[in-house]
Amino acid sequence: MSEVRNDIAESVAVIGLGSMGFGMAASLIRSGHAVVGYDPSPVAMKKLADAGGRAAASPADAAAGAGVVVCVVVNSTQTDAVLYGENGVAAVMQPGSAFISSATMAPPEARRLAAGLAQRGIHYLDAPISGGAAKAARGELAVMASGSPAAFEKTQRVLDAIAAKVYRLGDEPGIGASMKMINQHLAGIHIAAAAEAIALASKLGLDLAKVHEVITASAGNSWMFENRVPHILAGDYTPLSSVEIFVKDLGILQDMARAERYPAPLAAAALQMYLATSGAGMGRDDDSSVARTYAMLSGATLPPVTATASKS
Amino acid sequence: MSEVRNDIAESVAVIGLGSMGFGMAASLIRSGHAVVGYDPSPVAMKKLADAGGRAAASPADAAAGAGVVVCVVVNSTQTDAVLYGENGVAAVMQPGSAFISSATMAPPEARRLAAGLAQRGIHYLDAPISGGAAKAARGELAVMASGSPAAFEKTQRVLDAIAAKVYRLGDEPGIGASMKMINQHLAGIHIAAAAEAIALASKLGLDLAKVHEVITASAGNSWMFENRVPHILAGDYTPLSSVEIFVKDLGILQDMARAERYPAPLAAAALQMYLATSGAGMGRDDDSSVARTYAMLSGATLPPVTATASKS
Repeated sequence: MSEVRNDIAESVAVIGLGSMGFGMAASLIRSGHAVVGYDPSPVAMKKLADAGGRAAASPADAAAGAGVVVCVVVNSTQTDAVLYGENGVAAVMQPGSAFISSATMAPPEARRLAAGLAQRGIHYLDAPISGGAAKAARGELAVMASGSPAAFEKTQRVLDAIAAKVYRLGDEPGIGASMKMINQHLAGIHIAAAAEAIALASKLGLDLAKVHEVITASAGNSWMFENRVPHILAGDYTPLSSVEIFVKDLGILQDMARAERYPAPLAAAALQMYLATSGAGMGRDDDSSVARTYAMLSGATLPPVTATASKS
Repeated sequence: MSEVRNDIAESVAVIGLGSMGFGMAASLIRSGHAVVGYDPSPVAMKKLADAGGRAAASPADAAAGAGVVVCVVVNSTQTDAVLYGENGVAAVMQPGSAFISSATMAPPEARRLAAGLAQRGIHYLDAPISGGAAKAARGELAVMASGSPAAFEKTQRVLDAIAAKVYRLGDEPGIGASMKMINQHLAGIHIAAAAEAIALASKLGLDLAKVHEVITASAGNSWMFENRVPHILAGDYTPLSSVEIFVKDLGILQDMARAERYPAPLAAAALQMYLATSGAGMGRDDDSSVARTYAMLSGATLPPVTATASKS
């Protein structure tokens, strides 16, 4: 064992095995890491074991002996629970180990979490991720990371396994969180804009497939328009990313902007449309469901619904 | 002369020689058309003559003997004036000739203009353009076109000279106008969203060049974010496309949406930001100036202004 590099010999704990977390765990296993995972869902735990990881009994069980803990939950409240809740990881992590935090959160939350771990001698990498489930499965995420040189050094091999691109944005936690919020700010507006435009196009009698063809080749294009409009054309609202994600992320953005005394009327309008879509019963459906809200509010006709979160 | 094809022997009139119209006229001249142009600006007329076109004394003078009249003005009111105002072209155009209308306008306006010309036996091509001044100069515009087969046939060689891509969207005027409005709807929101996000990024202390690098490789990207943020980074607000263009286009969009009983809260929020930017004195500056409005309203710091419409 003395020949084995320390950072590979130590296990990597992955807490949160949703589509992103599971993909990251699988990528780590493929690149030779010993992966121990935890998720409250028994289905997720079985999937991890089938992929060659060890299913732990709790977050603390997963983190015991881990050199790096990767936390892939949805927000800072859940991250807090992973760290300090019942069977939390903070109590068992060793000084010199590292915690990679991938949840989307406001920058002050990332700084608070980092400060708490620093008191225990644990490195914190503020490392939100972008790319979606397919790229997570292939180990090709983009990571928007900030943290101390020691935090980067300790986590480098883990980052190499999960990411095609690691943006090293600075030495302070909070910078990664800020960049991710800017990405979500734009992404959330662009999905709602795509929905607003595509249902209006239908109302005007345009051929929606033609609209997708023309706009993706024009100045009105966005990554989200290109990616989400095909869901609407197919009527397939199986949640690749759900409406609730943007209820959450644009909610964080609005709180953050208010704290900064920053007016963000476009993000505010977009958030209202996600809230309306969730309020109308589509919160668990794909975020492109915002188009169905516009259709409902205007009498526009969209292609028939073929799948939703509950029906898919 | 009997060997010369009729549609080339006939001159082409270009009314409106701004950055788009001039580029189209130059592309037509390059491909062998006899081009006669009109613009109220003597500078534009001199530029046309220097490029090998004939500067006419009025729209009617330009259109006399033209097989195709290309009208590249800003809205339906100006298009009406070109057709039916003092020295308008409608009175001199021959039956069987064609009018290409490239202004952005509401679809009912396009249908009204087409119906008026149909009474005179003149073909109408509803043909808004996309691509910007550089592509206009190279003859590489995208044209979102609809009209009768006869209108397409009569204008085909002209379209070939000005466009890299002609989307043939249908037989009825109004379809091209609708598609262009959908493009402007998205483009207008995306520029305002880019401005909202980039000034917030500055407020959060992010490196703005890094934000451009990360976002253009992420799901938050849009064509407009990629294209306009460099203007903000350079502080260069020389108007490639001015704030007033989106005051106009999102204004048309709002009128249209209201008439259709279609709620468009994102477009409405974006329009307010263009209005605020114009109201603050930046109407003639580049549309990326919306970022300066966000900075003004939040205390965010942007790179120093190096050029504007008046200073450039």
